[in-house]
Amino acid sequence: MIGPGAAGLLDLAGIFVFAVSGALAAVRQRLDVVGMVVLAEITALGGGILRDLVIGAVPPAAFTSLGYVLVPLGASALVFFWHPQVTRLLPAVLFFDAAGLGLFCVTGTVKALDHGLSPLHAVLLGVVTAVGGGVLRDMLSGQIPSVLYDRQLYALPALLGAVVIALAYEADLHGGFVSAGAALLAFGLRVLALRYGWRTPRPRGVPD
Amino acid sequence: MIGPGAAGLLDLAGIFVFAVSGALAAVRQRLDVVGMVVLAEITALGGGILRDLVIGAVPPAAFTSLGYVLVPLGASALVFFWHPQVTRLLPAVLFFDAAGLGLFCVTGTVKALDHGLSPLHAVLLGVVTAVGGGVLRDMLSGQIPSVLYDRQLYALPALLGAVVIALAYEADLHGGFVSAGAALLAFGLRVLALRYGWRTPRPRGVPD
Amino acid sequence: MIGPGAAGLLDLAGIFVFAVSGALAAVRQRLDVVGMVVLAEITALGGGILRDLVIGAVPPAAFTSLGYVLVPLGASALVFFWHPQVTRLLPAVLFFDAAGLGLFCVTGTVKALDHGLSPLHAVLLGVVTAVGGGVLRDMLSGQIPSVLYDRQLYALPALLGAVVIALAYEADLHGGFVSAGAALLAFGLRVLALRYGWRTPRPRGVPD
Repeated sequence: MIGPGAAGLLDLAGIFVFAVSGALAAVRQRLDVVGMVVLAEITALGGGILRDLVIGAVPPAAFTSLGYVLVPLGASALVFFWHPQVTRLLPAVLFFDAAGLGLFCVTGTVKALDHGLSPLHAVLLGVVTAVGGGVLRDMLSGQIPSVLYDRQLYALPALLGAVVIALAYEADLHGGFVSAGAALLAFGLRVLALRYGWRTPRPRGVPD
Repeated sequence: MIGPGAAGLLDLAGIFVFAVSGALAAVRQRLDVVGMVVLAEITALGGGILRDLVIGAVPPAAFTSLGYVLVPLGASALVFFWHPQVTRLLPAVLFFDAAGLGLFCVTGTVKALDHGLSPLHAVLLGVVTAVGGGVLRDMLSGQIPSVLYDRQLYALPALLGAVVIALAYEADLHGGFVSAGAALLAFGLRVLALRYGWRTPRPRGVPD
Repeated sequence: MIGPGAAGLLDLAGIFVFAVSGALAAVRQRLDVVGMVVLAEITALGGGILRDLVIGAVPPAAFTSLGYVLVPLGASALVFFWHPQVTRLLPAVLFFDAAGLGLFCVTGTVKALDHGLSPLHAVLLGVVTAVGGGVLRDMLSGQIPSVLYDRQLYALPALLGAVVIALAYEADLHGGFVSAGAALLAFGLRVLALRYGWRTPRPRGVPD
């Protein structure tokens, strides 16, 4: 079973990889260090902040936990000084980002269920938790959020993980193994989609 | 008088037409089905979510009602399979969108008044309810929100409906007829502006 | 000591200059009067609304105070009729905007501390209060938020003011003089950065 300490460490690991993806977006946009820190913080914390505002858990966890704020600072420092090396590691970053995606869709759904939302709405909020930070990152960078195109599936793995954990809770299955399983399913679908270039269908007659 | 059932149906109708406009924006941007569902949900529910966050009515209605989430899914399915036909019906879509605008500015203002906001602030929030979803749709699609140009008047009809219902409540006039009248005024102004191409003035010396 | 009346006046002055910068952005984008009012209101009030949502102070001050809503309307009227003159006064506008920046980072940090946030999180929220409205203005105008580039320093002066006032509160130093001093430091750093073109560093190897 995953104890609270391990869950907290996983959370911080998810925040770290999301922050790295935000900081790398800042490098691509040729931003200064301030823009890099802002994008790192918002990519890492934005989804959870949106979730907490919706369920009324204020101040959001990002504004009560030291680690949540400091970890993106560390990720920014890493990318600031070693971004060529980090960029060369992009496949690894995508791999860890998939892990963050799996983790956040599960923890987001569980927190929403704990606050009394219906399974459907908890699933919705789990997906928002997982993809919200990336959407804010893209909007701030002046780009259409990449999740809207869902190339190599991004929202769909989050949806899978959220549905599985919500069904498990409905069936009264709780605990670390269940959470880990749901997160792994989301993670696995994302990694497979990255590997094989899977994507979601477009409306009839809409060209590439 | 409009009973709660009828009001609920009207609400869902407004959500449906707003969702169609979001899904059509996704077709124009050549998004996949995921992007279409996201834009449909956010266009339909975004204004109400912003309103509920501001008045502290959390979780927002969109996260407690099944219909609010399912109706945009239905609108997305419709547009996904028959978007050429829906696009040909665009004048009808604009007509129904005007109905949604009238409805939402009134229900938004009333909910804000019920939560104790002053008439001025309730009017402001009624307009946010009516136009907020469209603003989020445009921002996510990488466009300047069309309401900022207010071609063929969009914010102004919402303002009219909100002011009228707020004045009616100040004069202790309540009930379905009053709400319907205010919504019809907003609807009518928008339809007339569409028909005759009305627009709001620009600052002195700013060319087209 | 600055009494509540004076603090209220300062607040409204800060809102006014921020609203002017929003209205001028509308002129540059050739928006109609509706877009101008929307940008003026959001630039002036957006940062404070975000702060109040995060600390759970709902409805946000912008939705309970008459002056907060009316002052941006006045700023819009000014820019609508006399924008060529206002544009010629741009150096003065930047000067007053720096004053608003200094004021808002301090009042935002203090309000967050009063709501029980830790000094670190209060500093974070003070910066959000100061720069949030400008970020929303730029996002609505279809531009990458200028604070992300932090040319001539914008977020950094807000950070300085927020850190100083948070340290003062930790050392049990309160009152108008302390607040004014912290605000002046932020204001001074911004004005010096404007005068000498200071900027924050970029990641290694990223060209201009």
